[in-house]
Amino acid sequence: MACLFCEIVAGRIPSKKAYEDESVLAFLDVSPQAPHHVLVIPKRHIASLEDLTPDDDALVGSLVRRAKEIAKELGLVPRGFRLALNYGEDAGYSVHHVHLHLLGGRRLGWPPG
Amino acid sequence: MACLFCEIVAGRIPSKKAYEDESVLAFLDVSPQAPHHVLVIPKRHIASLEDLTPDDDALVGSLVRRAKEIAKELGLVPRGFRLALNYGEDAGYSVHHVHLHLLGGRRLGWPPG
Repeated sequence: MACLFCEIVAGRIPSKKAYEDESVLAFLDVSPQAPHHVLVIPKRHIASLEDLTPDDDALVGSLVRRAKEIAKELGLVPRGFRLALNYGEDAGYSVHHVHLHLLGGRRLGWPPG
Repeated sequence: MACLFCEIVAGRIPSKKAYEDESVLAFLDVSPQAPHHVLVIPKRHIASLEDLTPDDDALVGSLVRRAKEIAKELGLVPRGFRLALNYGEDAGYSVHHVHLHLLGGRRLGWPPG
């Protein structure tokens, strides 16, 4: 079965894009958990955090940096935002393509789930 | 006033270390929110996500990769874990030195705060 996020990258499934370049795509979460909830993903299919190698470090760092740039554009600086990465059933990881959640626009409680 | 995490890096404030190399330190959160709650930080002082530049991409990616390696060592694979990065008051960012939270060992709810 095709990967949902790869289909979104390919444009075969529509999404509300927040950012795109040659290696990164950001789009709105279809089930938002905050006034602003964006997913930032590598265009290349990486199934989970467990698959990351040192060769992916710069890409993963760029996802985080891109997320904070989007947060800034959304007016979440200096008020605040949270970035979250999930792995496995305990964290509710459902689409098996690495994705960084950016949430903001409200007070975010602690613990983070 | 000195940065709390820089003091921990310098060894002037004790911590329960989970990992250390020349650029990264991981230690147990003193206020754990899950059976396993580790902080993974760059040794170099970076005040917040807002200060990240492209030059930091590899370092930030290595924090994420190190966190998943620690998660694996803690037995959280394949069950699951969550990584979280906070910025600003809305997210409860209190120690102004970039730190990645690794939480696991229980079911983590959604939303992440």
